[in-house]
Amino acid sequence: MSVPGFEAAVAAARESLSQGGVPIGAALVRGGEVVAVGHNERVQQGDPIAHGEMSALRAAGRQRSYRDTVMYTTLAPCAMCTGAILQFKIPRVVVGEDRTFPGEIGLLRSRGVEVEVLDDPRCAQMMAEFQRDHPEVWAEDIAE
Amino acid sequence: MSVPGFEAAVAAARESLSQGGVPIGAALVRGGEVVAVGHNERVQQGDPIAHGEMSALRAAGRQRSYRDTVMYTTLAPCAMCTGAILQFKIPRVVVGEDRTFPGEIGLLRSRGVEVEVLDDPRCAQMMAEFQRDHPEVWAEDIAE
Repeated sequence: MSVPGFEAAVAAARESLSQGGVPIGAALVRGGEVVAVGHNERVQQGDPIAHGEMSALRAAGRQRSYRDTVMYTTLAPCAMCTGAILQFKIPRVVVGEDRTFPGEIGLLRSRGVEVEVLDDPRCAQMMAEFQRDHPEVWAEDIAE
Repeated sequence: MSVPGFEAAVAAARESLSQGGVPIGAALVRGGEVVAVGHNERVQQGDPIAHGEMSALRAAGRQRSYRDTVMYTTLAPCAMCTGAILQFKIPRVVVGEDRTFPGEIGLLRSRGVEVEVLDDPRCAQMMAEFQRDHPEVWAEDIAE
């Protein structure tokens, strides 16, 4: 089963990888239509707040409400992206995988956000390889 | 008592106000030196993720660690900025005021972040006036 929003997030992650960046992508979707896509930009722009979800939210620009949106992301949202999802009151998040990074899925659910984890092997493989090949960039991205 | 990091945050908030923007500013400080300053850029750049703290983190660029930093901000951090502070492992946050917006100070403290609230009347007045004069922008900024 192919979900357009999720496939857009995966494509964004792959684009970031092809640029030498952290391979995490996200897409904000409303009514089945992709509003905006983004990927991690730590390496490309030297921007530490530009995680996939944050880049998608920035690309979407000013929105009156996010209550009718879904955030698709290739990796479990970190604390920053979790906070953004809560702040923007996005009701549903679809996550590629949470094997290579657990994120803050528990916090999202505790605040009433519906979280679905797809356990997509493409996402897990892409992150596992990046973590293996670029441990220093990955450590920096999660401030460890 | 004047604290340089906090005064830089207040100055950034005033600068944003003078540009027609949301008057919230922040400064990231290390060892008493201001690393970077930022303010809300929703109006100026159409960027919904550019809250004061986020703009300061972006302006600071890539950092190997934030464990020796302090975040100064004129207003209690929202969920997004709280998540960023947690994600970046910033150990201490100094907040101008939490009267006009409660933010997520409880979440910060529950995760071990030291939070000091100054209850600064300049910050409270600036935000109260902005909320009164621009209720639609303020509602948008907090997704209400």
